[in-house]
Amino acid sequence: MLPLAESLNRRIAEQIPVTAHMGLRIVAWDGEGLRMEAPLAANRNDKGTAFAGSLASLAALAGWALITLQVEERLGAASVAVCRSEMDYRQPVDGDFQALCRLSDTEQVKDFWKQLAVSGKGRLPLTVHIQQGGEERGRFLGTYAVSLVSTSG
Amino acid sequence: MLPLAESLNRRIAEQIPVTAHMGLRIVAWDGEGLRMEAPLAANRNDKGTAFAGSLASLAALAGWALITLQVEERLGAASVAVCRSEMDYRQPVDGDFQALCRLSDTEQVKDFWKQLAVSGKGRLPLTVHIQQGGEERGRFLGTYAVSLVSTSG
Repeated sequence: MLPLAESLNRRIAEQIPVTAHMGLRIVAWDGEGLRMEAPLAANRNDKGTAFAGSLASLAALAGWALITLQVEERLGAASVAVCRSEMDYRQPVDGDFQALCRLSDTEQVKDFWKQLAVSGKGRLPLTVHIQQGGEERGRFLGTYAVSLVSTSG
Repeated sequence: MLPLAESLNRRIAEQIPVTAHMGLRIVAWDGEGLRMEAPLAANRNDKGTAFAGSLASLAALAGWALITLQVEERLGAASVAVCRSEMDYRQPVDGDFQALCRLSDTEQVKDFWKQLAVSGKGRLPLTVHIQQGGEERGRFLGTYAVSLVSTSG
């Protein structure tokens, strides 16, 4: 884990208090891929499986964290927000669960970086995989809006 | 509020503990339409607006509660789960927020009731509106899978 990810975990828990109740935290970050984890116990529903809202929260937050880390590393402070999402709940989750996402160097991602550098704003679709024990249980597709935050003046 | 909705509020808070931290609760139910509410304070994010995961949680839970109440009133105990959803975050939410949904007597809904009565299973798409101060800030479309639970034997 890089210091920036540790620092982002602290910011998330302080600034988005519901994520602390859910126990959502970044557990791996290699500069390109990110993994967040959540315990089942804090996120159980009436069926003893993971609450749909917790799965959606973990996925949306993992995508947000990945983009925030990459933008802050490359270009500095930014405002990142999900503006649209789709979630496919494939199998019930009955244990601790993870969200995995990665920003690879596709043409779409390259265009996003160019757009962001030129205009200070950009939009990026991102897929997040929800897993339990290494097996995919859900898939999230989010579109994130990013604006660079001017720190001058 | 009908007694079944009050009782469902207690079940939700007990059986889905994260919803109690979020302060999600049914505040109106007239047998056809349902309103759930959430306070901003418990659901704030790094920008001081509502966390996307809390908005998605409120919407998914409101749809779940509406279908659960209707199925339990008409046909008895049931297992209800969201299996797919889309969420459109239209405007930031910077105050307490509500989710509104309604099961009107459309052909699709009539077919759902027939299918559920015949086979004990059915699927139903449902739109949930996220509002703040009477103005729409987001829209959720969820598909819910319902199975009647046999209580005999």
